[in-house]
Amino acid sequence: MIERKKAVVLLSGGVDSATVMGIAKHEGFEIHCLSFFYGQRHSIELSAAKRIADTIGAAKHLITNIDLANIGHSALTDNIDVPKNRNIRNVAKEIPVTYVPARNTIFLSYALALAEVIGSSDIFIGVNAIDYSGYPDCRPEYIAAFEHMANLATKAGVEGITKIKIRAPLINMTKAEIIKKGIELGVDYSLTHSCYDPSPGNLACGRCDSCLLRKQGFKEAGIMDPTKYGNYSGG
Amino acid sequence: MIERKKAVVLLSGGVDSATVMGIAKHEGFEIHCLSFFYGQRHSIELSAAKRIADTIGAAKHLITNIDLANIGHSALTDNIDVPKNRNIRNVAKEIPVTYVPARNTIFLSYALALAEVIGSSDIFIGVNAIDYSGYPDCRPEYIAAFEHMANLATKAGVEGITKIKIRAPLINMTKAEIIKKGIELGVDYSLTHSCYDPSPGNLACGRCDSCLLRKQGFKEAGIMDPTKYGNYSGG
Repeated sequence: MIERKKAVVLLSGGVDSATVMGIAKHEGFEIHCLSFFYGQRHSIELSAAKRIADTIGAAKHLITNIDLANIGHSALTDNIDVPKNRNIRNVAKEIPVTYVPARNTIFLSYALALAEVIGSSDIFIGVNAIDYSGYPDCRPEYIAAFEHMANLATKAGVEGITKIKIRAPLINMTKAEIIKKGIELGVDYSLTHSCYDPSPGNLACGRCDSCLLRKQGFKEAGIMDPTKYGNYSGG
Repeated sequence: MIERKKAVVLLSGGVDSATVMGIAKHEGFEIHCLSFFYGQRHSIELSAAKRIADTIGAAKHLITNIDLANIGHSALTDNIDVPKNRNIRNVAKEIPVTYVPARNTIFLSYALALAEVIGSSDIFIGVNAIDYSGYPDCRPEYIAAFEHMANLATKAGVEGITKIKIRAPLINMTKAEIIKKGIELGVDYSLTHSCYDPSPGNLACGRCDSCLLRKQGFKEAGIMDPTKYGNYSGG
């Protein structure tokens, strides 16, 4: 029996990471998902992550508790208002308050540890520089620098057993292109969650950056958004 | 009042990180220590870290729980025997089973997040490539790659507010040189803990790599080791 190549997939439960799961699956990897509870107010996304991992058929899904709230300083973890109804054409031009310090670096570091333990060389992450270049750790030069560091950091890298590849297949795609790609690969977006500030019934607010980008992406892709939005969706 | 420059110091509670604390203090930094509970069997080192932070006068000491044991695969977190009585002249030539996958990368990632939040540009880490080059993530090329990545990862780096510097002042020093430096700066090594596998009464085993390197370092420095070793120290 030939052993399948393993991939670590960082899975948040949103559109991007679900699409990345679809891509890794399509490439034939045995998928080991990694999600994080980091004190995010939208921790409902972890239920979405679990549904996606189950549906796509991940070999394993590890949910790791990390103490980011302890370090704090982001609207996603602190008691700072999540901005609403911003012009998302401007989002890429500034670093928003929802930016969590060094979040992708911490996530990728755990993914690197897991990759080393399971003997995987491919770490998938759904970062995107087009719709979200407001986050410094979503840019191609950042991903390249992490990959370079990763290959110096690990036993496997040093011994030449494995060359770690940070796979960011969505990095240069628009949200509409991502959604079309996912639909093509059979990704069920009704399982995903995007909203940064869901209402108590877990309806998406429809007004935070993440909801606005999602809605616009589905609109531009000409595909119906299966999300249930709350009162203020403004659609 | 002039605000003091802030430094993040990764503090494990051993000889190296205590010395690094002494160096950061000597350079006049306001010190923000960061320690981790990661399921290590020698978690007694965290009490040592607390004593060192208190004694040296850190502004803050954050102890963060991280789920490394969840990812596993090291003699420091798993139920694998810690090697004893090895020839420490050979230690640098191989990667030992006590290596924790991507540990320094995870630790530095948290330090980066904290540095960003408090507005610090200096992250101190007590890695050492001479006595411990068996760990890939203790080498100068790794530290340089992490620093490069860090400056692409953060809001402060991108906006040019802060250039993150990963300070590894011990990287090219022998254990004896480190101890002499610390003594010169007034570091109290009786507060530190080195043993990977302490006995129930928290006496150092005297035989693991970390104990052997410590004992030899003090011997070579011509300074008395204040550690209490258990029965099998062999002196």
